[in-house]
Amino acid sequence: MATHKLLLLPGDGIGPEVMAEVQRLIDWLNKQGIASFETEQGLVGGSAYDAHKVSISEGDMAKAVAADAIIFGAVGGPKWDSVPYEVRPEAGLLRLRKDLGLFANLRPAVCYPALADASSLKREAVEGLDIMIVRELTGGVYFGEPKTITDLGNGQKRAVDTQVYDTYEIERIGRVAFDLARKRRNMVTSMEKRNVMKSGVLWNEVMTAVHGREYKDVTLEHQLADSGGMMLVKAPKQFDVIVTDNLFGDMLSDIAAMLTGSLGMLPSASLGEVDAKTKKRRSLFEPVHGSAPDIAGQGLANPIAMISSFGMALRYSFDMGALADKVDAAIAAVLASGLRTADIKSEGTTAASTTQMGEAILKEL
Amino acid sequence: MATHKLLLLPGDGIGPEVMAEVQRLIDWLNKQGIASFETEQGLVGGSAYDAHKVSISEGDMAKAVAADAIIFGAVGGPKWDSVPYEVRPEAGLLRLRKDLGLFANLRPAVCYPALADASSLKREAVEGLDIMIVRELTGGVYFGEPKTITDLGNGQKRAVDTQVYDTYEIERIGRVAFDLARKRRNMVTSMEKRNVMKSGVLWNEVMTAVHGREYKDVTLEHQLADSGGMMLVKAPKQFDVIVTDNLFGDMLSDIAAMLTGSLGMLPSASLGEVDAKTKKRRSLFEPVHGSAPDIAGQGLANPIAMISSFGMALRYSFDMGALADKVDAAIAAVLASGLRTADIKSEGTTAASTTQMGEAILKEL
Ligand SMILES: CC(C)[C@H](C(=O)O)[C@@H](O)C(=O)O
Ligand SMILES: CC(C)[C@H](C(=O)O)[C@@H](O)C(=O)O
Repeated sequence: MATHKLLLLPGDGIGPEVMAEVQRLIDWLNKQGIASFETEQGLVGGSAYDAHKVSISEGDMAKAVAADAIIFGAVGGPKWDSVPYEVRPEAGLLRLRKDLGLFANLRPAVCYPALADASSLKREAVEGLDIMIVRELTGGVYFGEPKTITDLGNGQKRAVDTQVYDTYEIERIGRVAFDLARKRRNMVTSMEKRNVMKSGVLWNEVMTAVHGREYKDVTLEHQLADSGGMMLVKAPKQFDVIVTDNLFGDMLSDIAAMLTGSLGMLPSASLGEVDAKTKKRRSLFEPVHGSAPDIAGQGLANPIAMISSFGMALRYSFDMGALADKVDAAIAAVLASGLRTADIKSEGTTAASTTQMGEAILKEL
Repeated sequence: MATHKLLLLPGDGIGPEVMAEVQRLIDWLNKQGIASFETEQGLVGGSAYDAHKVSISEGDMAKAVAADAIIFGAVGGPKWDSVPYEVRPEAGLLRLRKDLGLFANLRPAVCYPALADASSLKREAVEGLDIMIVRELTGGVYFGEPKTITDLGNGQKRAVDTQVYDTYEIERIGRVAFDLARKRRNMVTSMEKRNVMKSGVLWNEVMTAVHGREYKDVTLEHQLADSGGMMLVKAPKQFDVIVTDNLFGDMLSDIAAMLTGSLGMLPSASLGEVDAKTKKRRSLFEPVHGSAPDIAGQGLANPIAMISSFGMALRYSFDMGALADKVDAAIAAVLASGLRTADIKSEGTTAASTTQMGEAILKEL
């Protein structure tokens, strides 16, 4: 059995608590001989700043490069609200994405039947919802230069951010979306603002070209990102795979997550290109939720998104699809049994702490 | 009684149909001697392209500059999907906004009690919803330069859009938001992505400064635009006034509109700066909905958003707040009576065409 190297980066806030439940799962998999993982830990975000005055140290970056996959918790919190921009907690995550070339961010928005009532949307609008948002993650306004604040004198400053996309960046994220659609309901909706942005014009053109050349068997639709957002709220079940840029993807994937009623449940995967020689790709897995500093350290956090992110690692990085299915099934079974962390509790369910939820999922496995 | 000059720009798709109902209302106000409006008509969007190969002619731009207010329908449609970028239908609207300096876009999202069930959200989440989104409209990525597509050779192109904000642009839109909040529930939520964008950093800094200097009596909160979008979907009633940039405002106002369940009902106002001498400000009023080419010309369109936009003109450009209240009340009464256009019909209501709806509102007045 091959041994896989994992770097665990718990981060800030509830990060360490939910990561502990992944560690518990890994230990068990190792002990049972189901898999063989070697884990290392590192610091990222505010916790890295507190230790080293950076958002991630060069040592931890080296570990990230050497790892077969990175399991990431969450970063940020009011404690670091006034640290310099360059070393703010988010910078560590952005550097990992950029330096490792993790251009493809997969964010499934799935509505668990047991939780459909937790959504602010009507049950019929979200029950059975199963969307995959494919967000471009290393381009666009997140990384484009210039990115500056200039003092113009007279009390005036000018802030500039730059959205840049090249053809190849749009092509490769398009391929990820089309490939995923083929294993799903065979439909891709591409979202941009071509009526206002030149990057939207190019995005639309390149998606259309890739589709016409390589994916004619998949249905491709185009929507303006603003009406796409509306359609997500009005009738989300019409979508299968949505592919969009870094900033629209940030907004739209969060909105899609909220539709499910359970942000604490949703995982994500960030993938790099497949290496021609090794056939491997760099990867990072993180929950969609943030660091929730207000509830940190109280055993209130929901570990499901984090465990489910580890499940995505099994599926996308280690070709252990069957085991990933079992993890998903264990989560669904525990939910069906009525166990709930504080964020998803409702009448007639049983309260569970972070640890109790993690243990219950393990027992179910 | 002062005579006010209105420029009506019906535009494309359902624009002319819904504008006809505003014209009906204006004629009646004139005839009754309640007000005195002089109207002119112009072409914008696809209809201007068909006539003059531009998205708005210089003649109509001159009329727009001379008018006391512009009443705008909607632009665009598949017919013009492949006209050159510079003369696409939206360019006419963008030019009006930019050349007239209409920097403040007010988009109320109000949930009419009679229509709460039309929302995809649960009734309790949206009943009584009353948010005002204040969107910056002449800056940001919509107008920043460079805005280009460059051929890099080898089949590669590079698209660039530029988000630019200066201090004064953020200050003046902030003041609009704070002033509105004072007449409402006294709370402003400012949304940006300061964790990723320099324009977000400046936006946050300037809002905080304006608040501290001039509006300490108003509550100011800051939210990241992605979590703000989530909160809009999860619990929209927590907001009073939301102030945000051009692109985030485009997305967030559409999402807020969709929460109400009735896009066909929502108006918007776009305002310029108050002229120091004349005390007047340029203004344009348009429904939030688009040109809906699929239902154009069939008498199916809902004229309420358009009529309600004219109501905002009465309130914000002509200081006729009492009359605007009457228009709003007439709309609410007609809805309460059960009359519905196709987009908002439900069991037990009475179907109405565009014209019938317009006539019913007039009769109510
Ligand atoms: C933490 C932040 C930089 C990040 C982003 O904006 O990408 C987060 O919102 C996300 O969606 O992963
Ligand atoms: C038509 C289009 C240019 C416009 C925009 O993006 O501003 C529209 O979506 C709006 O919100 O008014």
